[in-house]
Amino acid sequence: MKKLAAEFIGTFWLVLGGCGSAVLACNFPGAGIGFLGVALAFGLTVVTMAYAVGHISGAHFNPAVSVGLWMGGRLDGKDLIPYIISQVLGGILAAAVLYVIATGNGSAIGSFASNGYGDHSPGKYSMTAALVCEVVMTFIFLLVILGATDERAPKGFAGLAIGLSLTLIHLISIPVTNTSVNPARSTSQALFAGGEAMGQLWLFWVAPIAGAILAGLVYKAVFASKS
Amino acid sequence: MKKLAAEFIGTFWLVLGGCGSAVLACNFPGAGIGFLGVALAFGLTVVTMAYAVGHISGAHFNPAVSVGLWMGGRLDGKDLIPYIISQVLGGILAAAVLYVIATGNGSAIGSFASNGYGDHSPGKYSMTAALVCEVVMTFIFLLVILGATDERAPKGFAGLAIGLSLTLIHLISIPVTNTSVNPARSTSQALFAGGEAMGQLWLFWVAPIAGAILAGLVYKAVFASKS
Amino acid sequence: MKKLAAEFIGTFWLVLGGCGSAVLACNFPGAGIGFLGVALAFGLTVVTMAYAVGHISGAHFNPAVSVGLWMGGRLDGKDLIPYIISQVLGGILAAAVLYVIATGNGSAIGSFASNGYGDHSPGKYSMTAALVCEVVMTFIFLLVILGATDERAPKGFAGLAIGLSLTLIHLISIPVTNTSVNPARSTSQALFAGGEAMGQLWLFWVAPIAGAILAGLVYKAVFASKS
Amino acid sequence: MKKLAAEFIGTFWLVLGGCGSAVLACNFPGAGIGFLGVALAFGLTVVTMAYAVGHISGAHFNPAVSVGLWMGGRLDGKDLIPYIISQVLGGILAAAVLYVIATGNGSAIGSFASNGYGDHSPGKYSMTAALVCEVVMTFIFLLVILGATDERAPKGFAGLAIGLSLTLIHLISIPVTNTSVNPARSTSQALFAGGEAMGQLWLFWVAPIAGAILAGLVYKAVFASKS
Repeated sequence: MKKLAAEFIGTFWLVLGGCGSAVLACNFPGAGIGFLGVALAFGLTVVTMAYAVGHISGAHFNPAVSVGLWMGGRLDGKDLIPYIISQVLGGILAAAVLYVIATGNGSAIGSFASNGYGDHSPGKYSMTAALVCEVVMTFIFLLVILGATDERAPKGFAGLAIGLSLTLIHLISIPVTNTSVNPARSTSQALFAGGEAMGQLWLFWVAPIAGAILAGLVYKAVFASKS
Repeated sequence: MKKLAAEFIGTFWLVLGGCGSAVLACNFPGAGIGFLGVALAFGLTVVTMAYAVGHISGAHFNPAVSVGLWMGGRLDGKDLIPYIISQVLGGILAAAVLYVIATGNGSAIGSFASNGYGDHSPGKYSMTAALVCEVVMTFIFLLVILGATDERAPKGFAGLAIGLSLTLIHLISIPVTNTSVNPARSTSQALFAGGEAMGQLWLFWVAPIAGAILAGLVYKAVFASKS
Repeated sequence: MKKLAAEFIGTFWLVLGGCGSAVLACNFPGAGIGFLGVALAFGLTVVTMAYAVGHISGAHFNPAVSVGLWMGGRLDGKDLIPYIISQVLGGILAAAVLYVIATGNGSAIGSFASNGYGDHSPGKYSMTAALVCEVVMTFIFLLVILGATDERAPKGFAGLAIGLSLTLIHLISIPVTNTSVNPARSTSQALFAGGEAMGQLWLFWVAPIAGAILAGLVYKAVFASKS
Repeated sequence: MKKLAAEFIGTFWLVLGGCGSAVLACNFPGAGIGFLGVALAFGLTVVTMAYAVGHISGAHFNPAVSVGLWMGGRLDGKDLIPYIISQVLGGILAAAVLYVIATGNGSAIGSFASNGYGDHSPGKYSMTAALVCEVVMTFIFLLVILGATDERAPKGFAGLAIGLSLTLIHLISIPVTNTSVNPARSTSQALFAGGEAMGQLWLFWVAPIAGAILAGLVYKAVFASKS
């Protein structure tokens, strides 16, 4: 239960911090934080929670990460579904809190911080570009996670490396899909945004999980120590 | 006394660095640091002072943090009031130094870097939105502090994780309340700004402390090790 | 083979992350990440991959780095050419993936994220300025690498120091040459951009490697421990 | 001699990286890094060189730091003058290299990245505001240095804490004096800028050294361990 509470609160913070900075602060007139600030915010949600509860649950906060770590032999199969449920619920609660705050000045939420492709991509990138981008970004994200938590890597730095890799992924790919690599994050926003955010949600489950599975297989085959 | 001096100087730096960057550099024409720069500045005040004097006082620099750590069983009750007094005094001295510098080009200080809601919120967010935001932000801030300083967390990284969580909190919530989560910071600015900054100051004592108490209780009940 | 796979994937990420952020996100209307975001992205590719695969290959991801470490006595001569080939191939694959994504909204790639001088320098800096800049930047880059991985330096921090030095180098020199210090990165972009990016490519092999050789010699002569 | 070479190259990098980013990249049209990028650059020069050569010379790169550490009992008096000479010479060489690069597109250097007050302050702050600001900023800078390198502080993190405190100092005070806290940095720029940059240079020796001396005395009296 302690593990599931950690995943719940960690994913809550990932969505509230990352999507919250996007909705509330990205385009604030004259001093907005832009995509750079949003990218930093997403990464710091993971950095901060990795050091806060990483020693409890492993700090996944993302169904694709849990799947990738399970494929890489780092997560017990019986924990997989409970982890994912906790993550999705934590994300939804964060979206609800963000809804209360964001509408507190009379604004409509519009598309919230939902992910999308085609007409719903920030830079109007096609479904194919979005698929390639989300698969590749999640693939590398999982390689960094598997490598930085490997017993041969320097101790203690994994939280920084993993969180900053999420910042980096956002620096590259917000224009393409608004960056998901995390089905729980995408689901939480789509539920409140509705419309095409729901209609395109499938891609943000399929692509991150496909990238994560691929990374788990590649890491075991190529980089894992033989012990 | 060494502890109180550390809290005094640390809170002095938090207010001078965080509020100073907001007042002096946020909107500088053409090269201003914006909310992103101010968020980074607040976080770095804590990162830098945590490594400088954290081994002396624990590096709270914030009455809500001291209350939350007391609730979580990490601060001796007899230290609570002296810590809070040192923090408030350090913040006020910083505001005085900032006043001298900021008016040194003939500018008026306006509302300084005071916190507010409604008409005094940067983005005109309601009192309810402000309350929810400050409670939730401080709640998570304390969870990160309690978790990152837990004996099970990686050694040495707490200063980074805690400071960067303050950066993250500002990336999200400057538009809502100008971000407090710290009654000493709010008080220092309100004393110089006067007017409604004083009239709304109650919220920036009540909400951060409520969030901190909640976090102390949740951490003890859910995440603390049993030893 | 494990080492070469690590260099391949690491250089893939350096080019996809660094050049990708430049091509996709630097100038996004209203919220673009600017040179600051691109500089952060390049550095974080190295930070993240250093912790992910640094314990396997040493995390060079750059022919100039491999040459400099070979000169400094840190890389076995028989690994030099295989490392460089893996790096160049990883960079080219990244450029191909970036091409697929970047053209996914109907955009032309223009000069991609290619390096250049004179009319092809972002700020129209001369060939001489470009040469001086690339030699000096790579010289310091290698001194940081050799120093931070020295047995006398604090353990575990090298990935951060080296990655952040690449961020710093970009903060200074994007206006001059679009910043190379890495022949694999330059080659990958020139192959897709064609034209003068190919015609000027020689400088981005010669100058980084010259700076790296100089650093290897200076480090051995001045800073190396005598053991 | 190894120590003096380390101070020379470290200060070279501080001036080339910090002032270079200001001169070349701060105001680049459309994607300039602004004061935030310049602040990050100055801090990263110290982070990177602290891990590269900190184990050789202690990584001062600044006459005020050397004076403050000498006052705090951390630097042998016979090293003080040689350290300062090496720092000033390293800074001047960096300014010369920056001059060659910066004029390589036909630009004039204007006031270079010189420090100033009154009409030569970026935000037109008075001499008094400049004095207060430089004394206080250097005072805190030295407290962070003395505290983060104290035997009781977490091992290995000092380079990060000290470098990031220089970033923070710039986030606050670039508008006031263009931020010195370092007489070698100020001297290097004034020699090339000439005019009032030379006429006002005295303040950027007096104020940082005064702040550093004060910090050394306060640290010894209040925070130092008794052993």
